[in-house]
Amino acid sequence: MVVSLSRRGNVEPFHAMDVLAEANRLKAQGVPVISMAVGQPSDPAPARVRAAAAKALQDGRIGYTDTLGLAGLRKAIAEHYADHYRLEVEPGRIAVTTGSSAAFNLAFLAMFDPGDRVAIAAPGYPAYRNIMAALGIDVVEIELGEAAYLHAGHLEAAHREKPLKGVLFASPANPTGAVIPADELSALVNMAETLGIAVISDEIYHRLAYGAPDTTALAFGNSVTVINSFSKYYCMTGWRIGWMVLPEELVRPVERIAQSLYISPPELSQIAAIEAFAATEELEAVKGRYAWNRELLMKRLPELGFPLAAPMDGAFYAFCDVTRHTNDSMAFARKMLAEAHVAATPGRDFDTQAGHRTMRFSYAGSHHDMVEAMSRIERWLR
Amino acid sequence: MVVSLSRRGNVEPFHAMDVLAEANRLKAQGVPVISMAVGQPSDPAPARVRAAAAKALQDGRIGYTDTLGLAGLRKAIAEHYADHYRLEVEPGRIAVTTGSSAAFNLAFLAMFDPGDRVAIAAPGYPAYRNIMAALGIDVVEIELGEAAYLHAGHLEAAHREKPLKGVLFASPANPTGAVIPADELSALVNMAETLGIAVISDEIYHRLAYGAPDTTALAFGNSVTVINSFSKYYCMTGWRIGWMVLPEELVRPVERIAQSLYISPPELSQIAAIEAFAATEELEAVKGRYAWNRELLMKRLPELGFPLAAPMDGAFYAFCDVTRHTNDSMAFARKMLAEAHVAATPGRDFDTQAGHRTMRFSYAGSHHDMVEAMSRIERWLR
Repeated sequence: MVVSLSRRGNVEPFHAMDVLAEANRLKAQGVPVISMAVGQPSDPAPARVRAAAAKALQDGRIGYTDTLGLAGLRKAIAEHYADHYRLEVEPGRIAVTTGSSAAFNLAFLAMFDPGDRVAIAAPGYPAYRNIMAALGIDVVEIELGEAAYLHAGHLEAAHREKPLKGVLFASPANPTGAVIPADELSALVNMAETLGIAVISDEIYHRLAYGAPDTTALAFGNSVTVINSFSKYYCMTGWRIGWMVLPEELVRPVERIAQSLYISPPELSQIAAIEAFAATEELEAVKGRYAWNRELLMKRLPELGFPLAAPMDGAFYAFCDVTRHTNDSMAFARKMLAEAHVAATPGRDFDTQAGHRTMRFSYAGSHHDMVEAMSRIERWLR
Repeated sequence: MVVSLSRRGNVEPFHAMDVLAEANRLKAQGVPVISMAVGQPSDPAPARVRAAAAKALQDGRIGYTDTLGLAGLRKAIAEHYADHYRLEVEPGRIAVTTGSSAAFNLAFLAMFDPGDRVAIAAPGYPAYRNIMAALGIDVVEIELGEAAYLHAGHLEAAHREKPLKGVLFASPANPTGAVIPADELSALVNMAETLGIAVISDEIYHRLAYGAPDTTALAFGNSVTVINSFSKYYCMTGWRIGWMVLPEELVRPVERIAQSLYISPPELSQIAAIEAFAATEELEAVKGRYAWNRELLMKRLPELGFPLAAPMDGAFYAFCDVTRHTNDSMAFARKMLAEAHVAATPGRDFDTQAGHRTMRFSYAGSHHDMVEAMSRIERWLR
């Protein structure tokens, strides 16, 4: 038996996906699990998005497209920058990707070589760290501590310690929901520019902030790589469709790599996504429900002994301190799923150092489920 | 302006995708291009596949699934091994992937580290080489020369020169269509086993051989990693859905990496693909058309001065020697597209050494298009 196992394949699991798999296993056995584990809107994609997909299915062949995506979708995305941000972006700088997952992989491969130092915030989205690790990039985790978000000072300090090649941040952030204020974002991008650090801005939770309007990092420089997706605000997770806005110099490298690694993004999802920008009314109603869920959790979670570890400015996550109940959030999450049938994500996903003290609850589900989940947790804790 | 460009991002383009992009650009201008450039069936996915997708669209949310795929699809794929190959495969060893593209990336990451030597055949599918290059794997291209396919002798010789960690081969092969006979395949897998070389068998063109029945490398050992897809025989290219059969030891590493790199394959495509194995009648009719196209091209291409560079045993490609017309197949392909409006793939994609002497014509299109393409080329050559 010759089985080859690489060292780099030994990446950390994405624990939320393990929780999801276990939740799905329980559901298949008839256990009525409520999932607050993954960032999964409970609403379907907007009606007009599904109608466009249904029409394409009838019309016939779903085939390969241009590697960088259908011209119509790239144009629609460019128009979104004009409409939503008052920014002019050439469609030629848009790369449609198989979810933001593909966008991260493509950005990392096109921008960084093995051994390059790239900074991310801790806590942060685990796939950043895991993909970079698999690709041999030296991940520099900046512990936010008391700070809600990454700022220029963090970047300067980390770079002074040992020079950085790149920095990646998200606003609104996962798992905290924290939003970087516009002036701080400007300072952060400018600091990176001054220090010669390449910037990747993850904007997947844009249109899901509850206070300030969205600010894209593109507003502060055309050398920024922006990553976004139809998964969250547009309720299209399982469609696997996202995009990047690239500096001119990166367009062809990303295209070349994507030709071999992805061929093209799923065509049906591309055709459907063109309609997503016209579904604002439906999607704002969905966002209204998130806001309602957010009010509920902001009150209920602290009452249940889960104080918020970060402000709930945006996205659809509550990131909580769980030390009143446990010093091992992984075991706690497992027990809560098995006994209370509520799935949530252990903090370890987001922070390998301090994650045993935290948990993330996604409130992208229905309001009824959120109410029921809080009741179940309350009964279970007694 | 700080733009970071990696060295590893400097991979070779997948020229067929560049040809496709140019063909799409011409089509958008109203030029009636016939595309023989990419392996793209002109038929839509089978009716029952599309009906299942349409139903899922109506039913509602298309979300994340288990990273390794829907339980129902993994079971259906396992049953396919029983039905088609008389082999028992545990559903737990099946990983559903976002096309075979994701399967290759996952296999390479999970099995090989930077600097590991992995052999492939030249000519061969360019994404093997390009993905491995991006991942720092040392690609060992075995020039087949007069041989139609890779055999145990090739492997032994290459390994003797400098030890190999892995070998990847396809049967039926792209671009040649060559099929490795069952006894030679057995000898090849056994030789790899003896030499301690891990095997990846690309079986994406199974069910598309015109002579011998399919033999899977799994028949000769459970340590083999098999990669397959719904793109070719099942006419589902743009759905981006494929699978791997893994040795037990690789299941969890592949799952862990896929959790971060892909989250999950597109759910709609997964739901639809379950139906693909029941669509044999419709798909055999499509294969019948390929066989008809194959007869045509086998006769016409040599008449036009493009002798076959390999037997057309399977897949839907004719791989031709073009030296009667040119010593630069890349320029020739570009000119043929611009002037005769027929797109085909320059051999450089498949063989960086000898590819200037060859071209690949895909005959997955309609019979009418094939007839018309041959006429256009004939007129253009005069």
